[in-house]
Amino acid sequence: MIRFDSDYTEGCIPEILQALNNTNDEQTIGYMEDPHCANARRLIQKWIGREDADVHFMVGGTQANVTVIASVLKHYQGAVCADSGHINVHETGALEAAGHKCLALPNSNGKISAAQVDQFIVNHYNDAAHEHIVQPGIVYISFPTESGTLYSKKELSDLYAVCQKHDIPLFIDGARLGYGLASSHNDVTIEELARMCDIFYIGGTKVGAMFGEAIVILNDRYKKDFRYHIKQRFGMLAKGRMLGIQFEELFRDGKYMEISRHAIAMGDRLIKGLQEKGYEFRYTAETNQLFPILTEEKMQELSGEFAFSHWEDLGGGRHVIRFVTSFMTKEENVDKLIAAL
Amino acid sequence: MIRFDSDYTEGCIPEILQALNNTNDEQTIGYMEDPHCANARRLIQKWIGREDADVHFMVGGTQANVTVIASVLKHYQGAVCADSGHINVHETGALEAAGHKCLALPNSNGKISAAQVDQFIVNHYNDAAHEHIVQPGIVYISFPTESGTLYSKKELSDLYAVCQKHDIPLFIDGARLGYGLASSHNDVTIEELARMCDIFYIGGTKVGAMFGEAIVILNDRYKKDFRYHIKQRFGMLAKGRMLGIQFEELFRDGKYMEISRHAIAMGDRLIKGLQEKGYEFRYTAETNQLFPILTEEKMQELSGEFAFSHWEDLGGGRHVIRFVTSFMTKEENVDKLIAAL
Amino acid sequence: MIRFDSDYTEGCIPEILQALNNTNDEQTIGYMEDPHCANARRLIQKWIGREDADVHFMVGGTQANVTVIASVLKHYQGAVCADSGHINVHETGALEAAGHKCLALPNSNGKISAAQVDQFIVNHYNDAAHEHIVQPGIVYISFPTESGTLYSKKELSDLYAVCQKHDIPLFIDGARLGYGLASSHNDVTIEELARMCDIFYIGGTKVGAMFGEAIVILNDRYKKDFRYHIKQRFGMLAKGRMLGIQFEELFRDGKYMEISRHAIAMGDRLIKGLQEKGYEFRYTAETNQLFPILTEEKMQELSGEFAFSHWEDLGGGRHVIRFVTSFMTKEENVDKLIAAL
Amino acid sequence: MIRFDSDYTEGCIPEILQALNNTNDEQTIGYMEDPHCANARRLIQKWIGREDADVHFMVGGTQANVTVIASVLKHYQGAVCADSGHINVHETGALEAAGHKCLALPNSNGKISAAQVDQFIVNHYNDAAHEHIVQPGIVYISFPTESGTLYSKKELSDLYAVCQKHDIPLFIDGARLGYGLASSHNDVTIEELARMCDIFYIGGTKVGAMFGEAIVILNDRYKKDFRYHIKQRFGMLAKGRMLGIQFEELFRDGKYMEISRHAIAMGDRLIKGLQEKGYEFRYTAETNQLFPILTEEKMQELSGEFAFSHWEDLGGGRHVIRFVTSFMTKEENVDKLIAAL
Repeated sequence: MIRFDSDYTEGCIPEILQALNNTNDEQTIGYMEDPHCANARRLIQKWIGREDADVHFMVGGTQANVTVIASVLKHYQGAVCADSGHINVHETGALEAAGHKCLALPNSNGKISAAQVDQFIVNHYNDAAHEHIVQPGIVYISFPTESGTLYSKKELSDLYAVCQKHDIPLFIDGARLGYGLASSHNDVTIEELARMCDIFYIGGTKVGAMFGEAIVILNDRYKKDFRYHIKQRFGMLAKGRMLGIQFEELFRDGKYMEISRHAIAMGDRLIKGLQEKGYEFRYTAETNQLFPILTEEKMQELSGEFAFSHWEDLGGGRHVIRFVTSFMTKEENVDKLIAAL
Repeated sequence: MIRFDSDYTEGCIPEILQALNNTNDEQTIGYMEDPHCANARRLIQKWIGREDADVHFMVGGTQANVTVIASVLKHYQGAVCADSGHINVHETGALEAAGHKCLALPNSNGKISAAQVDQFIVNHYNDAAHEHIVQPGIVYISFPTESGTLYSKKELSDLYAVCQKHDIPLFIDGARLGYGLASSHNDVTIEELARMCDIFYIGGTKVGAMFGEAIVILNDRYKKDFRYHIKQRFGMLAKGRMLGIQFEELFRDGKYMEISRHAIAMGDRLIKGLQEKGYEFRYTAETNQLFPILTEEKMQELSGEFAFSHWEDLGGGRHVIRFVTSFMTKEENVDKLIAAL
Repeated sequence: MIRFDSDYTEGCIPEILQALNNTNDEQTIGYMEDPHCANARRLIQKWIGREDADVHFMVGGTQANVTVIASVLKHYQGAVCADSGHINVHETGALEAAGHKCLALPNSNGKISAAQVDQFIVNHYNDAAHEHIVQPGIVYISFPTESGTLYSKKELSDLYAVCQKHDIPLFIDGARLGYGLASSHNDVTIEELARMCDIFYIGGTKVGAMFGEAIVILNDRYKKDFRYHIKQRFGMLAKGRMLGIQFEELFRDGKYMEISRHAIAMGDRLIKGLQEKGYEFRYTAETNQLFPILTEEKMQELSGEFAFSHWEDLGGGRHVIRFVTSFMTKEENVDKLIAAL
Repeated sequence: MIRFDSDYTEGCIPEILQALNNTNDEQTIGYMEDPHCANARRLIQKWIGREDADVHFMVGGTQANVTVIASVLKHYQGAVCADSGHINVHETGALEAAGHKCLALPNSNGKISAAQVDQFIVNHYNDAAHEHIVQPGIVYISFPTESGTLYSKKELSDLYAVCQKHDIPLFIDGARLGYGLASSHNDVTIEELARMCDIFYIGGTKVGAMFGEAIVILNDRYKKDFRYHIKQRFGMLAKGRMLGIQFEELFRDGKYMEISRHAIAMGDRLIKGLQEKGYEFRYTAETNQLFPILTEEKMQELSGEFAFSHWEDLGGGRHVIRFVTSFMTKEENVDKLIAAL
């Protein structure tokens, strides 16, 4: 079985394993206050061009999302998001368990627009009964989105302008940030992204690490006491340096973008193969998550040799499936898949 | 200003005021353990034909909804409801503040269907990632709905069959229950309704009381320790007899249905007036909440003399507004409104 | 049975019933935006000498406590309180259900001291692991306390100074505020109290109303969007004027203090009776809640004719019980009780 | 600096690093459904002698505690625990953030007794106002305790009997389980422990792993849908095999107990050293956490060369500090510390 069902099917980059070996006997203080975490923070600040940013490490994406959002919101506020947003559909109500509603807007190609968000917030305050309705308190988007698509620089900048106009923070879920930045369809640099939102996180789990996400708080207003939130949301890893060591390796010598480019190259190879065989895509194919439309027969046939996700039954024997490439995807496996398509 | 903006613009039926006067010097135990509450419970059990039901009194509808739903759900479960359901749109995220997500389905004429609910639950368990998705744990509907519409006996019975098939309780929000039952479009008796769900509540606030809702738990599985939930959700009124006294009066000698019929008669009179003047309705006009479509000019013109709610801007200068009649609505005021239309 | 078990055994002052009768046919807007609520707010602002205060009406005390505290706290903060505080022991974990821990300090005579609170907060920040510990975010006290005792002006002023030193709000639960103010042992005026805390509430339920508490927000920092909190915590009474009308009557012509003085006079009469018969008290007897120590035999004997609460079994056949007088207590009943002691 | 401040100052056992290397290129399904997790589950079931147990892996201890407790409790229930229990004092209110109160009982030497728990539960239901009080819903203890002490077989068995009598589950936090079992003061086997509670967890983070805890559910009543809770509480690690691989190595060939015995040997060596130099202990010294009492001077003197935790200021220049040994502690470092004492 060759797996294309996700970007977390293998382990991590070998440099991380090497570093864990090298540092295993070191004695350090716990809870992310060790020198490795400190160094990883500096590497990230440098990479994003914001030395004033606070950087915190957490274990997983759902945890990062809820911790950030709950740290920002008041009890009566909710998170504006795409109806396809991860917080709305794939976190078993973790945000609601923290007391907050997802204010889901209809997505287009996995995205929500500045105009949509603006209208939604304007409508809220225009409603005579607005005190009876959850107040929009943060805007959540994913870059790339859960549909593998990208916000353009213009789209991001418009969204952020709307957020600033309404004095509401913009938070970017970057679980697959590297893959978004590495895409040939992307026109946003990391330095730009780090000036077009208030908080974002850099995905490690799906981009080279064993586990771990780096939360970056850019707006001073949201920095205070964040470590209390981390502890309350189970993110205060006792052996915190395990996170620091991983992010040191990911951000040493441009490794993070190097491995991201590999995943994208594999994705592009697969896109080309799919296109040449005449497959249509459910969402624009531009990163490492691809959503081709297959017949029932072809889907069944492939499933003997390849692992992938079933995404949507379009009816009439047509199915959307998801193929995902990653930092570990082998070219030969992509070619085997293309041959079988 | 003549108010048609809601069914809570006046006080209560005079019998309640009289009873409060008569009982004011009585000394009773608090927290709904007094003889008035006990008597009110018996009157309700008798009315619904279920002497085995547990009856609890609470102050308001949002409180009743959250208390019931949170008492039933496990942490990872949510409430299936219409996207127009009160819990989803007009309770400032009170259910989410209690930790639970609204699983909103698109409504038709304010309602959700048995087929929709069945498909939604089937889809949930068919999803390979269902553990990453909030599990449907209760089905919430309103009778009548927030759009003033009614479930037919067939619709209710089908919904309940789906719920029983999936072993998930059905909860009916009856904030305006009397108005629903009194409608000439209704084909469900209270005895039938009390056998087609697991829990429902009987609205007092909008139907003759100063305040108060009576929760009726029919399924033994949900009865245990409910008073702990009531206390935790602020419903344990110290002078609990205030609720008992009100429901005694509402359910003595058929008063509840008598006043409900008055509101419906006033609503029917207004429907007829609107129809004769050629107005269309946004939702089927069948209870005491009516949603005619007016021009901008007419809406402005009426607003000088009459209070009503703006519901929806349809564009092109057309607006949906809401008129509501109640147990206190005066015929002469309905006629003034019709004359002004 | 003559009841001394609580101050919510009867109805309300007759003026309230009269006013409810007089206003029953009025049509008003809902949700506390009516003229009665507005007038009641002005009467309260005038009484406390703070026209800048925000005044909100809620139905009950547990609700008022949780709504205020949750509106102030961030997710990782808790409420410093006496271990005997109502929020800690008699609200079925309502504050925890809203996500917040009670940080309970040992009480002395029902009270906590400025020194205790200061030390607790200092210790918190001195602890190297303070990010692993709930941060003190508000100080909650009751006036009078759950033990019927009073904070002196000096004690209150010291507590408030500590709160201001640590930039943490002081919230006073005034469920029985009138009885505290009316006590001959009290040296705090309402105007002073309204300058020695950030938020407090004025109890109506136990002091003359059928139900209702008036939250007073003095510090501008906590005023914003409070009505969203009210709705989320089920306090947005549809027929909101029911609260306004009651508080109008309570604060017209000094009624609130007049009826409070009656309860205290009855309490004093009972204290004198108890003292003359040689009974000891568990807590200082200074308001309308009295905690004498009785033998098992006397307790049993009294329970045939009088209702009271069992508070604590001291062992050796000695029991603390609670007698409570109220705005409705009859002198003849106090005398009957004294005779039976 | 030689660190004795915790048992999470180093990395992990070398076998884990080796296994991570060996498996890095494997492709597996995520979310703990891979063969390594399956194998680790079998090894644990065999070790504890309960093949019927459900075993789930989570990242950290606070997460394991809250997930287990919240999965068991209804909204109005709380967790009975020692006032020194980790959930009560060192989890930043994570349990309260999940809606549940800690019902803290005074500890003796870090422990609570069967008699205490029995009395507490009996008192709860005897209280006329018990519906106003959080209902005890689970009993939480730690083995060993946060004070480094052990429950004897008799104490555990008595506690479990009380829990069964009241039909309330017993949950054991085994963050340092191996160190407890390996102690020469311990008289409980793992097979016995796995029959004297309903749920427990096996600590990995502090006993040889990089991170990870294994939750063991013994009572069928608490098994259903537990993975939903895991996902909602952020425990559904994408590369779940990282947990499986670690626990495979810990439970292969008795490794877990072998390394635990090393930590205990180092602890015993340090206890002997401390005793010979005449130091007293704040709590019974019987596992790898030791709480000697030092003078201010000695404490300052040691802090130049050794890291340890300050635990309590006893006044009069006397301080309780905590030394912790672990699976990685070097004998030479213990000897250096003893020499410096």
